[in-house]
Amino acid sequence: MNSASLNRLLCPQTVAVIGASEDASRIGGKPIAYMLKQGFAGTILPVNPKRETVQGLKAYPSIDALPETPDVAIVAVPASAVLDTVTALAKRGCAGAILFSAGFAEIGEKGAALQDEIVAMAKAHGMRLIGPNSLGMINPQTHFYGSFATGLELGFPKPGNVAIVSQSGAYGAHLMTAAVAAGIGLSAMVMTGNEADLTLGDIVDLLVEDPNTKVIALYSEGVKEADTLVAALERARQKRKPVVIMKVGQSALGQAAALSHTASIAGDDRVFDAVMAELGVVRVQTTEQMLDIARLATRGIYPADNTLGVFTVSGGAGVIISDAAALHQLAMPPMPESAQKKLLELLPFATPVNPVDTTAQVLNDMTLMRAFTESLVVDGGYRSILGFVTYTATAATTGDRLREELKSLGQAHPDRLFVLIALGDADKLRRYEEDGFTVFEDPSRAVAAIAAMGHYGQAFDRQPKQTPPAMAAITLPDTTPSEATAKAILSAAGISVVPETVCTTPEQAIAASQALNGPAVLKIVSPDILHKTEMGGVLLNVQGDDQIRAGFQTLIERAKQHDSAARIEGVLVAKQMQGGVQCLLGIQRDPVFGPMAVFGLGGIFVEILDDVVLHRCPFGEDVALEMIHSIKGAPLLLGARGQAKADLKALAKMLAKLSAFAVAAGPKLQSIDLNPVFVMPEGEGVYAADAVITLQP
Amino acid sequence: MNSASLNRLLCPQTVAVIGASEDASRIGGKPIAYMLKQGFAGTILPVNPKRETVQGLKAYPSIDALPETPDVAIVAVPASAVLDTVTALAKRGCAGAILFSAGFAEIGEKGAALQDEIVAMAKAHGMRLIGPNSLGMINPQTHFYGSFATGLELGFPKPGNVAIVSQSGAYGAHLMTAAVAAGIGLSAMVMTGNEADLTLGDIVDLLVEDPNTKVIALYSEGVKEADTLVAALERARQKRKPVVIMKVGQSALGQAAALSHTASIAGDDRVFDAVMAELGVVRVQTTEQMLDIARLATRGIYPADNTLGVFTVSGGAGVIISDAAALHQLAMPPMPESAQKKLLELLPFATPVNPVDTTAQVLNDMTLMRAFTESLVVDGGYRSILGFVTYTATAATTGDRLREELKSLGQAHPDRLFVLIALGDADKLRRYEEDGFTVFEDPSRAVAAIAAMGHYGQAFDRQPKQTPPAMAAITLPDTTPSEATAKAILSAAGISVVPETVCTTPEQAIAASQALNGPAVLKIVSPDILHKTEMGGVLLNVQGDDQIRAGFQTLIERAKQHDSAARIEGVLVAKQMQGGVQCLLGIQRDPVFGPMAVFGLGGIFVEILDDVVLHRCPFGEDVALEMIHSIKGAPLLLGARGQAKADLKALAKMLAKLSAFAVAAGPKLQSIDLNPVFVMPEGEGVYAADAVITLQP
Repeated sequence: MNSASLNRLLCPQTVAVIGASEDASRIGGKPIAYMLKQGFAGTILPVNPKRETVQGLKAYPSIDALPETPDVAIVAVPASAVLDTVTALAKRGCAGAILFSAGFAEIGEKGAALQDEIVAMAKAHGMRLIGPNSLGMINPQTHFYGSFATGLELGFPKPGNVAIVSQSGAYGAHLMTAAVAAGIGLSAMVMTGNEADLTLGDIVDLLVEDPNTKVIALYSEGVKEADTLVAALERARQKRKPVVIMKVGQSALGQAAALSHTASIAGDDRVFDAVMAELGVVRVQTTEQMLDIARLATRGIYPADNTLGVFTVSGGAGVIISDAAALHQLAMPPMPESAQKKLLELLPFATPVNPVDTTAQVLNDMTLMRAFTESLVVDGGYRSILGFVTYTATAATTGDRLREELKSLGQAHPDRLFVLIALGDADKLRRYEEDGFTVFEDPSRAVAAIAAMGHYGQAFDRQPKQTPPAMAAITLPDTTPSEATAKAILSAAGISVVPETVCTTPEQAIAASQALNGPAVLKIVSPDILHKTEMGGVLLNVQGDDQIRAGFQTLIERAKQHDSAARIEGVLVAKQMQGGVQCLLGIQRDPVFGPMAVFGLGGIFVEILDDVVLHRCPFGEDVALEMIHSIKGAPLLLGARGQAKADLKALAKMLAKLSAFAVAAGPKLQSIDLNPVFVMPEGEGVYAADAVITLQP
Repeated sequence: MNSASLNRLLCPQTVAVIGASEDASRIGGKPIAYMLKQGFAGTILPVNPKRETVQGLKAYPSIDALPETPDVAIVAVPASAVLDTVTALAKRGCAGAILFSAGFAEIGEKGAALQDEIVAMAKAHGMRLIGPNSLGMINPQTHFYGSFATGLELGFPKPGNVAIVSQSGAYGAHLMTAAVAAGIGLSAMVMTGNEADLTLGDIVDLLVEDPNTKVIALYSEGVKEADTLVAALERARQKRKPVVIMKVGQSALGQAAALSHTASIAGDDRVFDAVMAELGVVRVQTTEQMLDIARLATRGIYPADNTLGVFTVSGGAGVIISDAAALHQLAMPPMPESAQKKLLELLPFATPVNPVDTTAQVLNDMTLMRAFTESLVVDGGYRSILGFVTYTATAATTGDRLREELKSLGQAHPDRLFVLIALGDADKLRRYEEDGFTVFEDPSRAVAAIAAMGHYGQAFDRQPKQTPPAMAAITLPDTTPSEATAKAILSAAGISVVPETVCTTPEQAIAASQALNGPAVLKIVSPDILHKTEMGGVLLNVQGDDQIRAGFQTLIERAKQHDSAARIEGVLVAKQMQGGVQCLLGIQRDPVFGPMAVFGLGGIFVEILDDVVLHRCPFGEDVALEMIHSIKGAPLLLGARGQAKADLKALAKMLAKLSAFAVAAGPKLQSIDLNPVFVMPEGEGVYAADAVITLQP
């Protein structure tokens, strides 16, 4: 959307309410009552054919009768009247409509068809829709309350810089109410409803451009348009707007049954985790974490080189904070020696390392408090400063003096992130917030939020990634390829498989084995024998012409015994791999985010320990290397337990190529399973020993 | 302590304040000011030789001059005067003294010596001490404020049933202030200071007997007296008093370097986790979790068969709650079919399974709300009921009606745990609390607390465990035993090792190998050769008389070449184990909790994946089996990946025996490392193939 349309939708000047009600407790009455109460900056145009006025405002009998074209219309009419309403609005040139009305896609096919018709009509005239079945949209900056959320009865959000977008109406309203209670100012609140037109990603896209929005908080129950969302989140990252997301339904998704190993790995919630991590979005599990992070993020300080310096009046709190920092991998380097010495001279009982424990002594002499905190900022150079001052922040005997010292410190160092753990009277705590100190009650929660600011910083500063390997479009066969065909397709795309030949005579087999320079694996090749191992169709470690000849004959005989009608295409002679580390490389098409690459060590690591990493395709070797290093079992590839260091370079190259292959193969591809892949010692390459490609049904 | 002494200490009638100050902001003045302000139910006797009165109370020049014997004395005099003060109090027959004074063990050896002298004096007269260096003790039931915590300025705790014990003064005061803010009533608040006499465990022991205390919340920085604490926690479990503990210092402890594998496993924070789990104590990571659990636990409902039934006005909230329940392994079975049908008849748009989603419709007809919630209780039979009602709980249009319906439901079913997710005015929310509904703002936190109630129920109902195997005292040698000696000691105690013989001639070796019924392992035996494998001193898979003879000679030659001065005791001939699953069984003496048993799969499972379980020694086969099943790699022992099911019975027996051995061997034992232990298929036994026993330095 261009910025004029954006402005009309997010900050409407003229708002029509279709189905406007005199009764302030009805859904057609609430938005008007809220806007009148809070003083909406623009014009409200109620539409109601039965009344002269609505809640004291002049009412109009129809959309056509409106004296001017509304920027936005709130639609609170029965489902059956929505199409006509949208048609009239669209024809009038309205920029957007917020559809409260329910009874569409959420109730079944008939509703869905009507919904489609409405969207088509709106699109034809360039009008955008929020909903239907939406609890609406709010802009506290202009007091635009295009919502019937009852939660507003408890308090209207104050204007601020956090935009909340929720795919749930009721939970969105809960979030908004909790945000109001936490003192968070909002730039926008959007409840997307059925997302017939504008989806979560579209709204994010609007907010990235909105100058009032500094922080975007999302509540999601399922992504409808992955490409739009991914693009919008990537734009948010580039524009240094932090996004925090709460995506629910982990446990249910985790249960989705799937057939192949890769499928059961990729078909769970970790796909979403992987994509959010890639885009620099912080994913949280709880509403509190979401609001904590959003609140702190409004400070606009995102240190990529985040470090935590702590001052505390309690040694115990220092330990709690250190534990939490370790948990969140937030660095807490010690103070410089010289500074430690200086502090000890000021206060011999202090612990000056980091956390800097001033003991309660400091409360008797606030100049000491200033000296200690200033030393953390200046000498320690920490990017984030956390002070545990608990009730002393507000207690009558200490509060005012403490605030005075801290305030001037904060003013002198606007580039640092200052956080306090403090308790007491809400008004007194709010004053610290106004001074630039974000206040938490719980030290563990504060540390989690501070760590998130560092994650944003790293994501914002991230260097462009390597270009994925170039790959021409791949044409997959129309039916599921055999192992040999799958390997041939992959091999042609530069993904190295174990050297192998399909042989139809013992002589061919002997010739093929001589080229292997070592023992061979023999496998029967037949489209009618799916479970080779079970019928004795695989022979390992076969060496020498005589053994090869005998093995060839054994396999042919076994196949005939197993199924006299089986079509036998020959015997596959492959190199018997020795040593190396066995890994699994795979692709699984996610229904939302498309092909995902999967990497892990083979065997128990995948099947029992679930030690795998996922990434959206395609990606380059740099990302592949990061993936390889991120699994728990990585030390086995790096030379643990006396093993040779594995050929990581070749492994990364194969993984990146596989990711490019998955994209080049297009939507026909369902999954690829390379298992095992032999990762040989450094310089000796990687080889897929088995390959399964499945196609979309 | 007997109950009379307990009563004098926890609920003193007469309190002396030694070092009483007229100035209410000094540590000798604060307790008096607090007690006067709140109306202490007993007598305050200030001791101050320089004044006639203190804060309006008659003051006495000395302890001897007191008109009656105080139950408890608050001691706020300089460190140098504490010994004389304690002596005078002890001689007067005072039951206990709370020592605010600092300058003892926490400042070094001299202070520690003085502290010891004070304890000895008190003990000689049967007087107990809290502190020194303690922020004191509070009993809100009687308004006894034996504390100088400034946090009390923000609000005094209301009387209630939660006792908080803190090893940190400043953090304890923070906890108390946070508890007050969360509306939690306290039965006692104790800050244990240096624990010169009464330790954390002693205080827990007092509180288990205290009729006002229903829930015990502990903040610990390190356990001084493990036996006392363990016994007190076990008594709490038997008396069905829930204990929640926050023990800090995980990350620092995790860094404690240790030499053997077992040491580095046991020497971390998981020892504490294991012991708390054993005792039914819920360990939390944050202050909020601690207060959440304590608050909910005051309801006194601990369902061992905990199930969660959910009603919600938001589908999204239902998903969040389901996710959280899955995370905390809290069962959410579906409603019975008949009940689902009934609810759908009442409200066709409802989702009646569990969560029961009433949609916001229910707010228009509160009799529906009653029908739905009642059906959860009566038809669903859930032990815990969680309602997501958010701002509707307090909104003007819905709050009162909702409360009315819920109140009568709660009253009709006092055996269920009722929790609400609600937002809004604090006074309105408090009324739900009074009706028996515990209110949370965050659904995830509520679910975590509800899950904890089930853990308590299971711990309280737990059947007595099996008696550990009987074992006579074990006499360990005075120096670290060799592998062969270690195995002999363990074998004599009934712990089966791989059959082996030390042979001094090739003929002996041949004879020994013939008895093995399979291939042998040969190992050089020399007290001078520690790293056998590195010098080629181990030969695997040796079979047949000729190979045995040749192997014997090879090992002797290699040993001589390696170190011509080495004392060679012979060659060990052991059975070459085939198949089975390799495990690690170990013992590591924890500095706090004594010998801990360690179990895990061998190799990468321990070294890279850290997949081990710990338990305090000794224990029976039932506990051993639970341990075996609890590791992530357990499927490998249960027949995963086509393996035979391992001999779990024999494995559990060995683990239980090892735990008994660790106790029977006494404090001389530092660690035992059985690695690998071959766990053979069912019925074929377990065999330790290597054994290392180390002694305490």
